[in-house]
Amino acid sequence: MKRYIMAPGPVAVDPHVLSVMSEPLIHHRSPQFSKILTEVRKDLKFLYQTNNECLILTSSGTGGMEACVSNLLSPGDKAICVVAGKFGERWSELCQSFGVKNIDINIEWGQAVKPEQVEDALKAHPDAKAVFVQAHETSTGVQHPIKEIGEIVKKRENTVLVVDAISAMGVYDIKTDEWGLDVVVTGSQKSLSLPPGLSIVSVSDKAWEFVKRAKSPKYYFNFLKEKKAVERETTAYTPAVSLIIGLREVLKQFREMGLKRLFDHHKRLSEATKKAVSAMGLNQFPKVPSHAITVIEAPQGINGQDVVKILREDYGITIAGGQAQLKGKIFRISHYGHLCQWDMIIAIAAIEQALNRLGYQVEYGKGVSAAQKYFAQNP
Amino acid sequence: MKRYIMAPGPVAVDPHVLSVMSEPLIHHRSPQFSKILTEVRKDLKFLYQTNNECLILTSSGTGGMEACVSNLLSPGDKAICVVAGKFGERWSELCQSFGVKNIDINIEWGQAVKPEQVEDALKAHPDAKAVFVQAHETSTGVQHPIKEIGEIVKKRENTVLVVDAISAMGVYDIKTDEWGLDVVVTGSQKSLSLPPGLSIVSVSDKAWEFVKRAKSPKYYFNFLKEKKAVERETTAYTPAVSLIIGLREVLKQFREMGLKRLFDHHKRLSEATKKAVSAMGLNQFPKVPSHAITVIEAPQGINGQDVVKILREDYGITIAGGQAQLKGKIFRISHYGHLCQWDMIIAIAAIEQALNRLGYQVEYGKGVSAAQKYFAQNP
Repeated sequence: MKRYIMAPGPVAVDPHVLSVMSEPLIHHRSPQFSKILTEVRKDLKFLYQTNNECLILTSSGTGGMEACVSNLLSPGDKAICVVAGKFGERWSELCQSFGVKNIDINIEWGQAVKPEQVEDALKAHPDAKAVFVQAHETSTGVQHPIKEIGEIVKKRENTVLVVDAISAMGVYDIKTDEWGLDVVVTGSQKSLSLPPGLSIVSVSDKAWEFVKRAKSPKYYFNFLKEKKAVERETTAYTPAVSLIIGLREVLKQFREMGLKRLFDHHKRLSEATKKAVSAMGLNQFPKVPSHAITVIEAPQGINGQDVVKILREDYGITIAGGQAQLKGKIFRISHYGHLCQWDMIIAIAAIEQALNRLGYQVEYGKGVSAAQKYFAQNP
Repeated sequence: MKRYIMAPGPVAVDPHVLSVMSEPLIHHRSPQFSKILTEVRKDLKFLYQTNNECLILTSSGTGGMEACVSNLLSPGDKAICVVAGKFGERWSELCQSFGVKNIDINIEWGQAVKPEQVEDALKAHPDAKAVFVQAHETSTGVQHPIKEIGEIVKKRENTVLVVDAISAMGVYDIKTDEWGLDVVVTGSQKSLSLPPGLSIVSVSDKAWEFVKRAKSPKYYFNFLKEKKAVERETTAYTPAVSLIIGLREVLKQFREMGLKRLFDHHKRLSEATKKAVSAMGLNQFPKVPSHAITVIEAPQGINGQDVVKILREDYGITIAGGQAQLKGKIFRISHYGHLCQWDMIIAIAAIEQALNRLGYQVEYGKGVSAAQKYFAQNP
């Protein structure tokens, strides 16, 4: 069966990038690889809109998140966690694992945090050393107001802002330096359109001061060691060489495209899909949706997992269901990865067919035509 | 320039495996991927000669080593570290990072630990919860007697044996269960002949009891979470999907070949190279050499780094130099990775040429012919 992947990671990878990654391996301690690393690090700064160093870790995104907690904080420190979904919970769990006192701002799943909630939490806990938040909460499809949160945190000398932008960086505008985002994490298997295995973390000057003081136990994820390694044009430990070689290709494409076109591309796929959702009489789950993914509520009486299953098993299309408390209630289509308008048309057509099979009547082509119209009007 | 890699990791990867890895990505939470994971885990048990569960982590080998320390021990615990090179030092540093009191058995670099040294350390520190050792110390080329150390540690109820077999597993015989090796770590970029990015850890029943009690902070590297994930035929966090797909191919090849032929293959490349070293009038650095790599002392007055540089820049061949205190004093050729007898012939010929250029006179073909003779006699 011909297969398509439109899940929020792993994602479709450009065959050209896959082919570059499948060239014979080169040694990680060689001038050839140092040159690649230096180029990649430069292009990461372009993507991140930052002058901060971007550290490259060999792990999934969760490894990068852990690195933030263990490299910025010490046991007994206090941190504010925005918990509005599964990945917000992860910040909170990470703090607990490292003996950091987590002050959770609990948000109903599907809602975004309000900047004033962060402000209030900081007023109640002025000794909080960090605010942990998602740019985009992948489990609910919600976009948090990190620019506004940046305004609040940057006024405080003793607090850093740590943003999980794993499924947001490269999708829509994130101005790391201008917005005062001290530490920003991403992963290879999201908008960077690569297989999983890399996590990237940018660290601001303000955050480096926290890193120097942090006493949490750590070894493999060590920002100071990685910073020294950057100076020697290498990495602290053997990196995922082939992924970094793939990353160079992707970033080169991004650079040639320019950030505006990159963000417009995702917006276009997202808006068309969202028009189709309305046309099919369906509801989006998030109250503040992002252009990273479209999260659709399963119609009453229909299990979202069945939609996912029919698409995967009968139509060859991988989308994602809900996680944890949202299991069965939603299904999610990604707009990042190596995708274009035709992929969205396919996904929408398949959803129309699956829903009809499951007993929810949609006129064939209803969603598809709404997306087509949007695409035609927004070339 | 046509390029060859014969470094002790990253290694040459079979083009067929690279091509399988470059197929379109599949989702990590899908029945297709679960099937692959289950097959890989079964074949890992075959390779490890164990019934213990083999956990797959997305990280380099150092991540797997950290996972052993943080998942088996608590701050304040005591552990014995065999320190006979750079990777032995890593065990010791890892213990220190996690507040574990490290009792180091310091061995001169190039020497192997004696089993009675471990026995003595355990008598002096009967409360040591773990013994950390390398099967093969990649920085010096020394093979440690882990079978004998296994005999010693398995008699002690309150101590586990943790073996870094990163550059040994798959190269020569390691009987995890029979020898009582409680926890055994390996990495993808060594004899598994894949790009870097995966670490694999086997955990014995005895070790699981330690895992349940261990209080070190951890999140990303969590054995209990990974064990639960095994039961659900998945991984705790997004794994390096393409590397696991490559791993399936490599393990399938190993299974078809059988372990004896696999070990004989490495032994053959190693013995031939070692014959060539003697024929060239050179000395091996390690006193107890392994079949994983051949470590050659740079002749007096010659910097080993120059040999490495000429091979890489002028001849297209990547071998490795010495690390830390051995920098300049040695150079290292790997026998694992996708290599055959002709690769060894090439490496030896290139070394003959490089040494002559650097002023150490070797008759052309002296080393090559010694290797040829060995290969011919040991088909």
